[in-house]
Amino acid sequence: MTETTLLRRFTPVPYTAVHLDDAFWAPRQQVNRKRTLFAQYRQLKETGSIDAFRLEWKPDQGPKPHFFWDSDVAKWVEAACDSLRTHPDAALAALVEEVVQLIISAQQPDGYLNVYFTVVEPGKRWTNLRDYHELYCAGHLMEAAVAHYQATGRRDFLNAMCRYADHIDAMFGPAEDGKRPGYCGHEEIELALVKLYHATGEARYLRLSQFMVEERGRQPYYFHQEAIARNENPELIGMDYFQSHLPVREQTEAVGHAVRAMYLYCAMADLAGELGDASLLAACERLWESVATRRMYLTGGIGSMRYGERFTHDYDLPNLTAYAETCAAVGMAFWNHRMLQFDGDGRYADILERALYNGVISGISHDGEQYFYENPLASTGGHHRQPWFGCACCPSNLSRLLVTLGQYVYSVAEGELAVHLYVQGKAEIAMPNGATLQVRQQTRYPWDGEVRLTVTPASPTPCTVRLRIPGWCRRYAIAVNGETINAPVEKGYACLHRVWQPGDTVTLALDMPVEVLESHPAVLMNGGRIALQRGPLVYCVEDVDQPVSVFRLAIPDDVQWATAELPEVLDGIVAIDGQALALDLAEWTDTLYRPVAPIIHERIPLRAIPYYAWDNREPGAMTVWLPRAASYTWR
Amino acid sequence: MTETTLLRRFTPVPYTAVHLDDAFWAPRQQVNRKRTLFAQYRQLKETGSIDAFRLEWKPDQGPKPHFFWDSDVAKWVEAACDSLRTHPDAALAALVEEVVQLIISAQQPDGYLNVYFTVVEPGKRWTNLRDYHELYCAGHLMEAAVAHYQATGRRDFLNAMCRYADHIDAMFGPAEDGKRPGYCGHEEIELALVKLYHATGEARYLRLSQFMVEERGRQPYYFHQEAIARNENPELIGMDYFQSHLPVREQTEAVGHAVRAMYLYCAMADLAGELGDASLLAACERLWESVATRRMYLTGGIGSMRYGERFTHDYDLPNLTAYAETCAAVGMAFWNHRMLQFDGDGRYADILERALYNGVISGISHDGEQYFYENPLASTGGHHRQPWFGCACCPSNLSRLLVTLGQYVYSVAEGELAVHLYVQGKAEIAMPNGATLQVRQQTRYPWDGEVRLTVTPASPTPCTVRLRIPGWCRRYAIAVNGETINAPVEKGYACLHRVWQPGDTVTLALDMPVEVLESHPAVLMNGGRIALQRGPLVYCVEDVDQPVSVFRLAIPDDVQWATAELPEVLDGIVAIDGQALALDLAEWTDTLYRPVAPIIHERIPLRAIPYYAWDNREPGAMTVWLPRAASYTWR
Repeated sequence: MTETTLLRRFTPVPYTAVHLDDAFWAPRQQVNRKRTLFAQYRQLKETGSIDAFRLEWKPDQGPKPHFFWDSDVAKWVEAACDSLRTHPDAALAALVEEVVQLIISAQQPDGYLNVYFTVVEPGKRWTNLRDYHELYCAGHLMEAAVAHYQATGRRDFLNAMCRYADHIDAMFGPAEDGKRPGYCGHEEIELALVKLYHATGEARYLRLSQFMVEERGRQPYYFHQEAIARNENPELIGMDYFQSHLPVREQTEAVGHAVRAMYLYCAMADLAGELGDASLLAACERLWESVATRRMYLTGGIGSMRYGERFTHDYDLPNLTAYAETCAAVGMAFWNHRMLQFDGDGRYADILERALYNGVISGISHDGEQYFYENPLASTGGHHRQPWFGCACCPSNLSRLLVTLGQYVYSVAEGELAVHLYVQGKAEIAMPNGATLQVRQQTRYPWDGEVRLTVTPASPTPCTVRLRIPGWCRRYAIAVNGETINAPVEKGYACLHRVWQPGDTVTLALDMPVEVLESHPAVLMNGGRIALQRGPLVYCVEDVDQPVSVFRLAIPDDVQWATAELPEVLDGIVAIDGQALALDLAEWTDTLYRPVAPIIHERIPLRAIPYYAWDNREPGAMTVWLPRAASYTWR
Repeated sequence: MTETTLLRRFTPVPYTAVHLDDAFWAPRQQVNRKRTLFAQYRQLKETGSIDAFRLEWKPDQGPKPHFFWDSDVAKWVEAACDSLRTHPDAALAALVEEVVQLIISAQQPDGYLNVYFTVVEPGKRWTNLRDYHELYCAGHLMEAAVAHYQATGRRDFLNAMCRYADHIDAMFGPAEDGKRPGYCGHEEIELALVKLYHATGEARYLRLSQFMVEERGRQPYYFHQEAIARNENPELIGMDYFQSHLPVREQTEAVGHAVRAMYLYCAMADLAGELGDASLLAACERLWESVATRRMYLTGGIGSMRYGERFTHDYDLPNLTAYAETCAAVGMAFWNHRMLQFDGDGRYADILERALYNGVISGISHDGEQYFYENPLASTGGHHRQPWFGCACCPSNLSRLLVTLGQYVYSVAEGELAVHLYVQGKAEIAMPNGATLQVRQQTRYPWDGEVRLTVTPASPTPCTVRLRIPGWCRRYAIAVNGETINAPVEKGYACLHRVWQPGDTVTLALDMPVEVLESHPAVLMNGGRIALQRGPLVYCVEDVDQPVSVFRLAIPDDVQWATAELPEVLDGIVAIDGQALALDLAEWTDTLYRPVAPIIHERIPLRAIPYYAWDNREPGAMTVWLPRAASYTWR
């Protein structure tokens, strides 16, 4: 056993081996396959992003290619290819081939491939890595090429991207090798190069990723040198925006642009695992503490500020103006999934689950064709999903995550199977020793906490099955073949050590009451406020369900919360019903501040729905955090 | 009596007639005269802003003039000249003359005067009114020239600025007159032209101001036409940022950049008064409702968002990230003072006072040499005043306001004297009928609410003295020559109708208890929170005064608040002492959200100081709004 595998014990079971057939995720995956991917293609066509690869753009002639368009197209190709692996679709495959051939056709003789710097600013290749997403686009093209190879078995796109990676590898690297010590202002290529290494076995790609991560934040700053070479003031933008203010091992706080941070941390986790690098993993853990314990919304969203789409400071988590970009929540899922593989610590699975069920899927409408870029935790009624964006990074990020959702459910290690997420479905799991386990999950999760797991090895197999006990769960029971057992819990997982017989059945009953949550007192915006959560789902209240505007509500401490199954709402949700005090604001007319005085109110019914589901019916105000009635003086 | 005077009944008593000798403002005025104005001169010299008027700048040679530098210098000249009128100072006068002659020397043969467009982008005069503050700088130069003329009686600078105004008047105006229908992206020249009109009697300047205000927001938008002429996408910036999305009479919400909004509203009020324009005044009143009842901090600060320094939406008043630029609070004072003159409505004086005692003077350090650009209502400890800024609009705005503070104290109308502010001092007040009233105020305001007013006419004079009963005051008593009277109250002023005899004495006793305030429930950030106010002063708590960090405090409802005179602190303040519960955060370690649970605490003493005084001692965290203990569950 190498040092590497010692550090990273678990391997995800690929989504190709995990078939979901539940009532929550499977319909979302189907909408994604049948509608979303095609709608995205149409948007990419209509905006000109796909046809930009024809390299026919001339000034004052048609839409000018944006420097990040390549990445939007690439992420769509990746999502579509990932979908084709499990769900062949001739129409989608034809679109993919058209796009892939266009991309390949745009490659320059020297291997370079970037639309913007080929037709818009052809003289400026590699002159501004900080601002122009050039290596970021390259990274997404590499991820797309790997997905295309895995879906089709054909190497044309992969080979083209290897040529591009070789071009980049020849250009960037240690100064002592005569190369430029550059890295991208928007991280992404680092994790893509690790994927390319796995797809090709070419260790140079791993080393280039390692170089870019290690060089980041070293002085003199590459971005400063570059700016000086452009005759620009290098100090105009703080290096923390790009997570390049310090060498990555010295970074202890999550700073700057939230999506960039996530992609960097993903690459750091990848490299820590590949190289068995404990100090890089320790840096990831410190950064994780910063995000998860001080800079994250209840929804798993991150990045508090619209300006710079960035982290701000500890406990600064405004609700109305929350940025919480969809891509950043997707990044949280990517990163926590990677962190989870090291020692199977449930704290990562908790955040992964929190992001998936809340801040990620809030990003897409029920019909699968409209998106949130920002996912605030309160709205006065003007925030709505859009069919597309000038900067359209989020839609295809959602799609590639939904297609591959199965990979988040299980991991394996030597003699161990970890169940991270509870989603009804079937999996055919290849254990490291070559044995195969068939696993069937039956559950209505997240609507209730009953899970039935049937484990079917080909022959009796000794194995530890690790069942995640979610952080939100305060009581649970486990039975094997009907017999209640007391399983030891390690890092948030109940460990069932036994020799599994075909058809062995485990039942896990997770108590799933309505929980009334509060925030750390330092989150000033949530002082005196509570939020509702049930299971992994954060709830919110929307105007459409209440007799008065949600901003007039306060919650007494004595509410008896109840759940209500609403099969007719958005193809089925479970709402939370209770009561609230409705504040009479008549006395507040034309008054913004006043001496504390009793307020008139009446008790009314309250209905909360899962946060992800808001803004899918009548437009109106919404809030996750509600004031406690005790924080007012009542008449 | 003309329609004009019917609409605007009152006239401010000029600051030159009002000598303040109190313990609160007079020392601030003295620091401003003796230290601040000289320190600002040094900063303007060191940054190159003054010497830029030599027009010697060449590319790559010395600091590049910024397009708003002219205005920074002009505002300093204005403040210094205003000071010289009441406090001759040879050293200051010499500096003023040096600067004024430099400014005059920079005027071009055609009357144009702008450093940036003379030396940096000489070909681009008047090509981008939206972004380059060209008319804004002109406006500040005009205000400076008027002040210089008033201080010295010399017309050299004034004449130069009239030539510039004539140049502008020839260029801009109705299209049917063959002029460009332009106006500035940053309002200022509109109010300056009214001042220039008053100083010179030239009605063209008033008409030009009127044109620029009336044309604003009409379609096709001038800023769009201009952008198209520059081959730019005109849609990149919303017109609301410049208050030019709608004709001003159709605007009902305060939007966009807060300082610009204030300067526009000042000009609208000026024009409404000059022209007797009731519908323009009505537009001002609607905008005032928007600001004062939905978009203003408790400190009188405005502009919630750093990005764009702007208004956001109703009730969006975050504390930690409050922008609340000092200049915007100064603008609130300017605008409310103007609104107050129409019918002497105390609601304007209330906001004027709120801004002056809180959001304005928080902008300058106790030593008079450091400034806040932003005035947040909470800080985690990293926000401190600075000796200067790259964009140094606030320092000289503070200085010109402090020099002329006396003008905010009194207004006169036919047979009426209104007392707006309570500040110890003497005034020699010229009544509209030619009579003179000597008025002496004796008071320790704002530290207590006892005011003694001695009115001394040359001979017995019939006059209504209107004493403002501040909006914060819930009980008061008035006596004339020792005899308690019941005076009728009109629009927040107690009206004393009598024939005043030399030496008549009025005593006003304003009850000034500690008030515990709450916000409109729609201000989500302040839900469950209270703030302390006493008299006009908003209080805050600073780490330096508490045994634990201010973010660990919660306020029980049963606190007995007391005041404490602290003569040794910052030359004397009155603190508010009480108690708080200190939250034990040990159980919150590594926890950002949790089910509501009792929290451990201990009762500790609490000390609050006036908001304006914070960050003058040990650096640390600060907050104005504190959570009510009732909003937690206590163990």
